[in-house]
Amino acid sequence: MQERVLFGAAYYHEYQPHDRLELDLDLMAEARFSVIRVGESVWSTWEPENGRFDLDWLQPVLDGAHARGIAVLLGTPTYAVPPWLVRLYPEIAGERKTGQRIPWGARQEVDFTHPGFRFHAERVIRKIVARYVDHPAVIGFQVDNEPGNELLHNHGVFQRFVDRLRQTYGDVDKLNDEWGLVYWSHRLSDWADLWTPDGNFQPQYDVAWRQFQADQTTEFIAWQADIVREYARPEQYVTTCIAYDRPAVADDDLVRRLDVTAGNAYYAMQDGLLQPQIQPTQQNWTTTGTWAFYLSADRMYSSKQAPFLVTETNAQSIGFPWNNRPAYDGQWRQAAWALVSRGAKMIEYWHWHTLHFGAETYWGGVLPHSGQPGRTYKEIALLGAELETAGALVADLIPDHDVTMLYDLPSKWLMQKYPPLAHEDGSPDDRSYHGLFDPFYRGAFDAGLQVRILHTSQFSDDDHPVLVVPGLYLADDDLLDRLVAYAAGGGHLVVGPRTGYADHEGRARTATMPARLAAAAGIKYDEYSNLSTDVPVLGLGDDAAATRWIDGLQVDGADVLANYHHPHFGRWPAITTRAHGEGRITYVGTVPNGPLAAALFRWIKPNGNDLPASVTVTSATAADGRRLRFVHNWSWDSVSVDLPSPLHDVLADAAVDDKLDLGPWDVRILVEPAQ
Amino acid sequence: MQERVLFGAAYYHEYQPHDRLELDLDLMAEARFSVIRVGESVWSTWEPENGRFDLDWLQPVLDGAHARGIAVLLGTPTYAVPPWLVRLYPEIAGERKTGQRIPWGARQEVDFTHPGFRFHAERVIRKIVARYVDHPAVIGFQVDNEPGNELLHNHGVFQRFVDRLRQTYGDVDKLNDEWGLVYWSHRLSDWADLWTPDGNFQPQYDVAWRQFQADQTTEFIAWQADIVREYARPEQYVTTCIAYDRPAVADDDLVRRLDVTAGNAYYAMQDGLLQPQIQPTQQNWTTTGTWAFYLSADRMYSSKQAPFLVTETNAQSIGFPWNNRPAYDGQWRQAAWALVSRGAKMIEYWHWHTLHFGAETYWGGVLPHSGQPGRTYKEIALLGAELETAGALVADLIPDHDVTMLYDLPSKWLMQKYPPLAHEDGSPDDRSYHGLFDPFYRGAFDAGLQVRILHTSQFSDDDHPVLVVPGLYLADDDLLDRLVAYAAGGGHLVVGPRTGYADHEGRARTATMPARLAAAAGIKYDEYSNLSTDVPVLGLGDDAAATRWIDGLQVDGADVLANYHHPHFGRWPAITTRAHGEGRITYVGTVPNGPLAAALFRWIKPNGNDLPASVTVTSATAADGRRLRFVHNWSWDSVSVDLPSPLHDVLADAAVDDKLDLGPWDVRILVEPAQ
Amino acid sequence: MQERVLFGAAYYHEYQPHDRLELDLDLMAEARFSVIRVGESVWSTWEPENGRFDLDWLQPVLDGAHARGIAVLLGTPTYAVPPWLVRLYPEIAGERKTGQRIPWGARQEVDFTHPGFRFHAERVIRKIVARYVDHPAVIGFQVDNEPGNELLHNHGVFQRFVDRLRQTYGDVDKLNDEWGLVYWSHRLSDWADLWTPDGNFQPQYDVAWRQFQADQTTEFIAWQADIVREYARPEQYVTTCIAYDRPAVADDDLVRRLDVTAGNAYYAMQDGLLQPQIQPTQQNWTTTGTWAFYLSADRMYSSKQAPFLVTETNAQSIGFPWNNRPAYDGQWRQAAWALVSRGAKMIEYWHWHTLHFGAETYWGGVLPHSGQPGRTYKEIALLGAELETAGALVADLIPDHDVTMLYDLPSKWLMQKYPPLAHEDGSPDDRSYHGLFDPFYRGAFDAGLQVRILHTSQFSDDDHPVLVVPGLYLADDDLLDRLVAYAAGGGHLVVGPRTGYADHEGRARTATMPARLAAAAGIKYDEYSNLSTDVPVLGLGDDAAATRWIDGLQVDGADVLANYHHPHFGRWPAITTRAHGEGRITYVGTVPNGPLAAALFRWIKPNGNDLPASVTVTSATAADGRRLRFVHNWSWDSVSVDLPSPLHDVLADAAVDDKLDLGPWDVRILVEPAQ
Repeated sequence: MQERVLFGAAYYHEYQPHDRLELDLDLMAEARFSVIRVGESVWSTWEPENGRFDLDWLQPVLDGAHARGIAVLLGTPTYAVPPWLVRLYPEIAGERKTGQRIPWGARQEVDFTHPGFRFHAERVIRKIVARYVDHPAVIGFQVDNEPGNELLHNHGVFQRFVDRLRQTYGDVDKLNDEWGLVYWSHRLSDWADLWTPDGNFQPQYDVAWRQFQADQTTEFIAWQADIVREYARPEQYVTTCIAYDRPAVADDDLVRRLDVTAGNAYYAMQDGLLQPQIQPTQQNWTTTGTWAFYLSADRMYSSKQAPFLVTETNAQSIGFPWNNRPAYDGQWRQAAWALVSRGAKMIEYWHWHTLHFGAETYWGGVLPHSGQPGRTYKEIALLGAELETAGALVADLIPDHDVTMLYDLPSKWLMQKYPPLAHEDGSPDDRSYHGLFDPFYRGAFDAGLQVRILHTSQFSDDDHPVLVVPGLYLADDDLLDRLVAYAAGGGHLVVGPRTGYADHEGRARTATMPARLAAAAGIKYDEYSNLSTDVPVLGLGDDAAATRWIDGLQVDGADVLANYHHPHFGRWPAITTRAHGEGRITYVGTVPNGPLAAALFRWIKPNGNDLPASVTVTSATAADGRRLRFVHNWSWDSVSVDLPSPLHDVLADAAVDDKLDLGPWDVRILVEPAQ
Repeated sequence: MQERVLFGAAYYHEYQPHDRLELDLDLMAEARFSVIRVGESVWSTWEPENGRFDLDWLQPVLDGAHARGIAVLLGTPTYAVPPWLVRLYPEIAGERKTGQRIPWGARQEVDFTHPGFRFHAERVIRKIVARYVDHPAVIGFQVDNEPGNELLHNHGVFQRFVDRLRQTYGDVDKLNDEWGLVYWSHRLSDWADLWTPDGNFQPQYDVAWRQFQADQTTEFIAWQADIVREYARPEQYVTTCIAYDRPAVADDDLVRRLDVTAGNAYYAMQDGLLQPQIQPTQQNWTTTGTWAFYLSADRMYSSKQAPFLVTETNAQSIGFPWNNRPAYDGQWRQAAWALVSRGAKMIEYWHWHTLHFGAETYWGGVLPHSGQPGRTYKEIALLGAELETAGALVADLIPDHDVTMLYDLPSKWLMQKYPPLAHEDGSPDDRSYHGLFDPFYRGAFDAGLQVRILHTSQFSDDDHPVLVVPGLYLADDDLLDRLVAYAAGGGHLVVGPRTGYADHEGRARTATMPARLAAAAGIKYDEYSNLSTDVPVLGLGDDAAATRWIDGLQVDGADVLANYHHPHFGRWPAITTRAHGEGRITYVGTVPNGPLAAALFRWIKPNGNDLPASVTVTSATAADGRRLRFVHNWSWDSVSVDLPSPLHDVLADAAVDDKLDLGPWDVRILVEPAQ
Repeated sequence: MQERVLFGAAYYHEYQPHDRLELDLDLMAEARFSVIRVGESVWSTWEPENGRFDLDWLQPVLDGAHARGIAVLLGTPTYAVPPWLVRLYPEIAGERKTGQRIPWGARQEVDFTHPGFRFHAERVIRKIVARYVDHPAVIGFQVDNEPGNELLHNHGVFQRFVDRLRQTYGDVDKLNDEWGLVYWSHRLSDWADLWTPDGNFQPQYDVAWRQFQADQTTEFIAWQADIVREYARPEQYVTTCIAYDRPAVADDDLVRRLDVTAGNAYYAMQDGLLQPQIQPTQQNWTTTGTWAFYLSADRMYSSKQAPFLVTETNAQSIGFPWNNRPAYDGQWRQAAWALVSRGAKMIEYWHWHTLHFGAETYWGGVLPHSGQPGRTYKEIALLGAELETAGALVADLIPDHDVTMLYDLPSKWLMQKYPPLAHEDGSPDDRSYHGLFDPFYRGAFDAGLQVRILHTSQFSDDDHPVLVVPGLYLADDDLLDRLVAYAAGGGHLVVGPRTGYADHEGRARTATMPARLAAAAGIKYDEYSNLSTDVPVLGLGDDAAATRWIDGLQVDGADVLANYHHPHFGRWPAITTRAHGEGRITYVGTVPNGPLAAALFRWIKPNGNDLPASVTVTSATAADGRRLRFVHNWSWDSVSVDLPSPLHDVLADAAVDDKLDLGPWDVRILVEPAQ
């Protein structure tokens, strides 16, 4: 059990234009930092030329940290290869299309599967780890950083892809059959006939290709982790920092090879955290909207179904040079406590000081360019004190969940190339998977419910009273059957559009849709339609509407919960429900708008909450079994919240009887009184 | 004379995941199918490896069809080359820019002019045709499919382009003069100096290049047709399927080498067929708007000035995975009868069953993925019965026309690179030719008039009381003089912007504009202006406005029909007219908005119709000379239409005296009582 | 002293489809033309094949011009290389990315630093200049044309860039330190490690790369100028035509190597000149808005801080084929007089006749395609007579200025890759430098003030009562200190966002911001924010607002002029001012919207003018010391302007006592009565 939430920042003293190590570390200590991350970006400093190593420069940083009780997460530098290595072996450059090398100049531009890279990476990893593994400050290792940034099209990668297909399918006739290569004259006569991914238009190929790419990343990180473990003490953990939006990373597979999940939680500050959020927003490597920020936290928990480390989150302001938006007062506290409430046991800002040179000059750190503490530092130091106050109580929380959602990376990947949803202008929405998934997550959030996210690879039906499954396009027979069995066993299965439509090869199923679910759900459909304009929905909530997609549901035993108001679509129900065995299956035939989604979840799980619109309440169980509540006010307006029963304010160390007052952008941490 | 309109679908039993040939054919027969198209996409099935042929697999399909009285259109598979061929000869890959090969993986990606391709194509064509030509089900052949998809930049193609220029112009000095290569130092000293098309900025080059590209397509299709004709029986026709929006196809030239026109008619269903249409829409390989759908039908008629085959049109829903929009009830009937009314003698859906794998998994067929007949099948079967009922009466119609429009592919091509019109945001509109042409077509349509479209290559002045010519930018002296002669001979010539501006080489003319037309039209201009915002027009119709372009017309003998309301443009008239010889020339100096265009055509040809806004009436003459009316109601609201004289309802086999009631999305086919 | 403003057009008789030299020159003489520009685009005419020269064709043009008193500016043709040269040496093709040659077909596509190009360029230059230098019509030479069109990535260019870095920094360790190459593992072990610019993400690299590219252009033009000067008579000037928006041209450096500045002034006609302008507009190689047109004139003056030649400006209509917008009556006069009032001593239209072939067929000349004078010619001829009337009085004006603005090309270049501002949709605004600079210029303009623009390289503190410095991101210590000294010495320094943030290497400074200015300005900030929506500003003007950016100013001795109305930003002032020494420093912490910017300048320099909103007044001093006023009415509405004292109307040769009436799109030139 951790003594407290680890709190700190990435610290790159080697990037400081002047030596200010002692000053920096003193400021960190004052802000109650307990951890720093170091060393992961500077291979060319560790090894200035091929085979010449310079390993000692980090010693003062580790010594100074240790002297102040600050622990260290030490990185291997393989994500940023030195220029001399590319000069020696230009063939290690990654290729975004066959034969088109990524020019060197940023980072993560190499084919990390290439043995020329691996040889040099292994050598420098062993040097660094051996040098520092015994330093008492080092509590763990991060191998590489934010892996899976590219879909590598290099010759060797492609040839190994062909090898895998050969091993999987045996001969080309089998592949021809399974992939339907009769189509458009794609039947192979020999493995050498396989086309490169640049020109591919076959979904079946894409399914295999994307899984293969993610597997490359997993294998690479596991290879590094195994090297590090040859040196590490048992209590030193090995992890990597996951950027969840990278195209070639399967976080569930990846963390199986690591000791703990670590990831980024970047988010739009300022009005990006307003609740309720009004404007529709695009998500990418940063989230916009309070609900989306919680979703990113819940995805981190989902990787290993366990508490996690936040290796990077917004310090002053994170983004491109044209997108500086430092938080309003209070938002840093709010964000950190939100992460903690969802299972974060480390909060590490990226990064300590704003860089003076390089591509990320405007990725704002805890300290501004002047190096003098400003508002950001003060706000973060205040939070540091709070975390210290809260101590072990909040350091290893299991977040509550009211509903569970099934998340499927292969479906997401396939929909990037073959999206079922369009943008408003009619162009394809390559984030269609989230276009299907997020409205359900947000609906639960808006209904005051908490969500546990499960990867399909983690699905079992224990302890999930409600299971929501939108957009699960790729699914084998067994998975679909287990969903039905889950409902039969007493669960409430909520199915959204596209679920069960294709099999594991991405082939549209030949069964009545939704395949293998139809009978139990008491509905079927044989057509569906995209929508350009929303269609009103009657029967559930006010201002409810269908957006983007409608399945043409025909009722065959289900009850109808809501209908479309439309001369054509009105023939079909929008939402149906049917008891099945001990449980129930609810089918949602559209992408619900905000009011419809919230109304749906209020129907699924009424919680009786009557909170101000700007307030969220989440809850968790501490390692010692105590129950915690986190109450946030995401707005400029002060609010007052009625409490159903007296609680104890953890930070104020004071009882709160029946009414909780929150200021603008405020958060309160409450614990149930000991019984 | 055909017994009935051919009715059916493309049928790819080889794509079915399971053998269901008999079931499929039975369902077709129930839906009154009389034709299927087969075999054109699977070269790798016909010839699994180089020189090894497998020709028998299609036999059961043909036998089964024949047994049910279903005829077969057999395709040659050359548009989809097998992977082994590209592996053997990578140089046959097409190039979109010099030296940049299209990666294999879709279809139509080869340089079809390359002898390496031709050798193999000829071999497989001969094998297939010889194998099946004598099958009694085969009524015709489709060679290749939707040709002209790429502008090929391959070395051999470019060298032959240089050869053609040399043959055309004789020496480089002549070319230097004709193309104005003094400009920007482009004078050639030798043929080897000619630059490749990638870098070209000269319109004169582009005129020749685009014509050359279209000629490659014509030559290729004619070459195939001639091979097939070595085998075919006289009654078996040879055609190809034209996708009219392809960049390298001249449909008028192409069909001269074929027995019959065949083409695609894809269109936006659902609200895309609302009449009147409200929102502006972009046209591409699908049309949006009822008027645009009729335009695509009239373009098919125009290819050969004769009835035509619709080889592909929407089954359930045709488009990208993010654009599924199955029709409202009734729309399939409406669309098919509209095509028939404009001269279609075959309606063939694309395609029978929705594919379970491959790029077109969401190009929805008559049957959904489940293979079980749904709403689409039922609607189409209803239509099949109607076509059977109507029989020979509607099988070979000559559509009426009130006005004729001149259509010019070279002008369209040139405007793709040098567009005279901009989008609203100021960016170039590469569909400018249609930006000039379509408002006139739509104006006639909205005024209740029917349009015959003539290619410039087909123009003669017989039987065209009104001839509308917008956007005829490229025109040689003779053509312009013939336009004037047409008016002098009694026709009403309506000229729109850009007509007559350049000569056949794309050189702006040195004459007073509109060149060679000015005197007869009684106007001239020496300047013109694009418009960012519409300018009101007074004098013709309500809510009339000028859009996008204004010619600065100076009156020199013409009468003014309409004026601009603007402090600057108000000095010039918007529309003028002048008697010329036995006829008249009307000059329209702008791109008319909807109300102005409709008012113009009501002035040109008043028809006294007073139809509900959602109703269209078209008419045609049957092969036996009887006169037909097709009355459509393109809306959700039922309407009642007054008839000037009693007619006979073909499908109900009942008299209609003076009032015709139509339901939502309804169509009625009426025939004049025998005299 | 010039006798009159030179007035004429570029004249390409070699582009005329027929010989009409005498007619053209007669028409020019009638329009009071006094100059033509010739010969710069037709190397392939001067030298039809390698080493074969044809030099005599221009003689009749020069003779004919001379006979009519029309002077000639003779161009060297190096910007348009002939096809035979590229055929012989394909390696001279420029590269936009490493190894990606620009296909030949337009102009300016070669690597002009390549010795293969230089050899041939020098030979043809010497031939042409020697042939015509003694012709009495030739008053000067233009070398090349609109240089700096490409950032050249050719191997030789890159290698010389590496050479320069080596010469500048000495060894890689120095470069590693100065550029901060520790970042992302970019430390070089050897010069051969330097990455090519394609892949670069380091701002420090970009600073050097862009300066190097501009220096290539300067060196090339100076090299040509020096060759020409070997032949030229002393009174014949040498210049080039500057397109100010080219990516690789530093106009201040360039004109130091030339005798006079010459440049383009292209602008949006019609409503593009409405004053006040309502809609926001994007600037590029043409300007939109009256203020922007004056800005382009003031930039031309700034190149050499001296009167200048306008080598190209709108004849009928200049732009792409989809953007024809000939001026309203009066606008040509207005534009020309505006240029003259700001120091233009030549007005040369581009171009005499509209071309009949080639890429610029719709770049409309003085004559339309018909070759017959139309409205444009008539308007321009009217202006020619006016300029003749005004004579020497207006031929060499020194424009007045009320405020001075500092302009910095390196900051502009860097912000193209690392923009601080975003477009409304959140995407980066690569014109961010002008996004910061223009609102200040426009504010002064809207406040009725005239602006002198100084390049940073030209800055000294003489005679600039007000100095406005927004967006001066790159600045060495000395420059910042001189700004403070300027204020201390009595000037009013007005600082805008981003000024002083980085040093000359583009490194964010470590000092308190604004670096080296904070103490004297009495403010500091350690954070800043982009804005998505405007924030109201109180305290200065009506409807004032902050846009796009806010510096979080903390007052430390300054007075506050204006505040934000916002719960977060309201803590910081928007504008502060503080007396410093004999002068004053005002700090503007945001990009002011129109009303705020105008109010700011009215506060800075009240001028008591109370002009109609559509009227501008500018002033200048004639060579003989007389004082001139130029009064424009940029609207369709006639206006009346009160004069503070009697003036003399130069063109009407009449006194104007106290009231000046202007018609639509009118301009009046007034001179102060002799004392």
